[in-house]
Amino acid sequence: MRPADPSLLPHIVVLGAGFGGLTFAQRFPRRLARLTVVDRQNHHLFQPLLYQVATAGLAAPDIAQPIRSILRGRPDLHVRLAEVRAVDLAARTVTLDRGALAYDYLVLALGGRTSYFSHPEWERDAPGLKTLDDALRIRRRVLLAFERAETEPDPARREALMTIVVVGGGPTGVELAGTFAELARTVLRRDFDRIDPATARVILVEGGPRVLPSFPPELSASAGRQLRRLGVDVCTDAPVRAIREGEVELASGILRADTILWAAGVAAHPLTRTLGLATDRAGRLQVVPDLSLPGHPEVFAIGDLATLVDRNGMAVPGVAPAAMQMGAHVAHLVAAELRTGARETPRAAFAYRNRGIMATIGRSAAVAQMGRLRFSGWPAWAAWLGVHLVFLIGFRNKLSVFLQWVYSYLTYQRGARLITGMDDPPRSD
Amino acid sequence: MRPADPSLLPHIVVLGAGFGGLTFAQRFPRRLARLTVVDRQNHHLFQPLLYQVATAGLAAPDIAQPIRSILRGRPDLHVRLAEVRAVDLAARTVTLDRGALAYDYLVLALGGRTSYFSHPEWERDAPGLKTLDDALRIRRRVLLAFERAETEPDPARREALMTIVVVGGGPTGVELAGTFAELARTVLRRDFDRIDPATARVILVEGGPRVLPSFPPELSASAGRQLRRLGVDVCTDAPVRAIREGEVELASGILRADTILWAAGVAAHPLTRTLGLATDRAGRLQVVPDLSLPGHPEVFAIGDLATLVDRNGMAVPGVAPAAMQMGAHVAHLVAAELRTGARETPRAAFAYRNRGIMATIGRSAAVAQMGRLRFSGWPAWAAWLGVHLVFLIGFRNKLSVFLQWVYSYLTYQRGARLITGMDDPPRSD
Repeated sequence: MRPADPSLLPHIVVLGAGFGGLTFAQRFPRRLARLTVVDRQNHHLFQPLLYQVATAGLAAPDIAQPIRSILRGRPDLHVRLAEVRAVDLAARTVTLDRGALAYDYLVLALGGRTSYFSHPEWERDAPGLKTLDDALRIRRRVLLAFERAETEPDPARREALMTIVVVGGGPTGVELAGTFAELARTVLRRDFDRIDPATARVILVEGGPRVLPSFPPELSASAGRQLRRLGVDVCTDAPVRAIREGEVELASGILRADTILWAAGVAAHPLTRTLGLATDRAGRLQVVPDLSLPGHPEVFAIGDLATLVDRNGMAVPGVAPAAMQMGAHVAHLVAAELRTGARETPRAAFAYRNRGIMATIGRSAAVAQMGRLRFSGWPAWAAWLGVHLVFLIGFRNKLSVFLQWVYSYLTYQRGARLITGMDDPPRSD
Repeated sequence: MRPADPSLLPHIVVLGAGFGGLTFAQRFPRRLARLTVVDRQNHHLFQPLLYQVATAGLAAPDIAQPIRSILRGRPDLHVRLAEVRAVDLAARTVTLDRGALAYDYLVLALGGRTSYFSHPEWERDAPGLKTLDDALRIRRRVLLAFERAETEPDPARREALMTIVVVGGGPTGVELAGTFAELARTVLRRDFDRIDPATARVILVEGGPRVLPSFPPELSASAGRQLRRLGVDVCTDAPVRAIREGEVELASGILRADTILWAAGVAAHPLTRTLGLATDRAGRLQVVPDLSLPGHPEVFAIGDLATLVDRNGMAVPGVAPAAMQMGAHVAHLVAAELRTGARETPRAAFAYRNRGIMATIGRSAAVAQMGRLRFSGWPAWAAWLGVHLVFLIGFRNKLSVFLQWVYSYLTYQRGARLITGMDDPPRSD
């Protein structure tokens, strides 16, 4: 029943090659359809290790892999580097910055963006961490601040240069705060002579009552203790009132810091709000249980783009494993429909398998929950390292990251302490 | 006779932490003086491997090392991240973008810049390769051109997108041309489906009669053959008349190429022309045989900043080993003067020890001359790899580069094929 001419095969367009879109493409069987995978970057980014690029532990190429390489050797699949401009659900077309694509099935997997919610003006002074460029910019900003502190005669200015405020106590905020504290205390302190980087302040500001609010309370408490042991000032119940250049205003007063990092909000890609469908406050699309859009069984939204309570009554979290499971679910479902030529009604509902959550804080410091197991400190840290190495795509990347971790562990050094991009014209940083 | 208060020690200012300045600082004995090393970057860059970052073989952190790390653990030495604004030889002061320094001895080691000689307007359309930012920009430009070719319907535009012109047949030009040809033929061809990157053209344009003009003629001929075998069009006796956006004008006609790279000229840092002293056409300072400036025995110029016929009658070439030897010579000489408190007259003249020259072209393709030995192909390539690994600074970097080379050799892959910096506002690229 398979048509001889591949151009007669149905066309599936996948927007985004993050965890969700890539898993869909990898799991979708060959020769059942033509696939076009569109991404604005040429690489798939291993987001969970992005903070290690920002904190000078890893090089950018260690955590990224060209999408073309990952998906090569499939004549039924094309990769397009392009920006998505619009989706016309009625006409079943996607408009790109260069050209347009008609689809039979569409998989929306564009992921999230840093969100400042009702305060977009904070972005200039408190950059977020979503892309490699963000990470390289944060690395430059922090390393430059220490360089400037070294020659700054005014003690108050010097203190501000050596203060880092991280807004948001979720996993990214915890990872950034813990790693920067460690960087200052163990790595940089041996390299500067006029300033003592060990006196640098890293302040983690969280609006709610505890860090890692999506974790069990005892792990939040443990994470707080581990952060304090690394020298991080943890401020909970401290919603941010305003951010201005070099200062963060809290109810309790003003923090002065040259480096302010925003890890407090993620929203879905803005395209979601242009479709005329229901979204939540973060712009995520309300999907029906099979992950398709209401009234559009040929369009799916997966990963950080979708909001759903799954068939077991669990709100699916915005984490990489959820996105991957969603990609696999949709691949299976669409492949079955194309094979049989019939649509199952109702289609199988998505169920999230929670294999656990973990967050790392620093050297031998982490928290993890796997099923009923909850653990902290060294065992959680070792588990975190192992899981992230296993899921990192590409043998070269696994080997390189493994060796850099061994190197950093043994030498208390970080291999990527470069300030690049200085030639670039001044921007928000 | 050593003063008890270190602040009473003489002050040596070293401008630039390239091969020359860094070698001076490393070779200068401890506790004889206060040293201040100034560089505009926070890292020492291993320039000979820079083209491998531009051609996506290595990550930026692999070939760079923080200057503070290299020189740490010396209480008599300070590192300053700063831009040099001016040197006042009469007042013995250096003005930086932030602050000023008075010196007893000054070592000028600011190195070279890409030079377009009388055509600075060519820079916009034909970027050069001197810094990590240059390398990342070139990598982005070439990878983006292939991405655009993939969706370009017009055959002429597609051809221009898939053409790379490298201007200048010295070692950098040969390395860039050979490696880009290899990248297109072995790596990218497996990843694109609409275009065939193996049909990409790489054109090496050299104004003189042969590539690698500083090498013996038979090695130039061998390099030319090896380049052609990799698919590079080698155009000799082809001086560039003009460069405009997307085209290079030669006497024989116009080459259309979206990527034009300039490897045809290096000039000394522009500071040299502000000192009121004699310089050559490339702005290099005429130094006296001990490497000091005429009339200023307390100021030395080393590396690409200086021009000299050494005491054996050999014009010292602008290569890393020469800069390192000059740094060591000046360190020895200044240390002896500070130890004895007397100036030897005349001071020992610098003599360049030529240990050989080599250039790599691609996989198993290189040329090398060591003393009377001249060799090409695989043995020269193996020698090139070995020498560069040995001289690369830092164990982590050596290991990482070694592994990437093994990986690339075995898999015909390149690990750093990332397009980053897309967020940056449009620049010359």
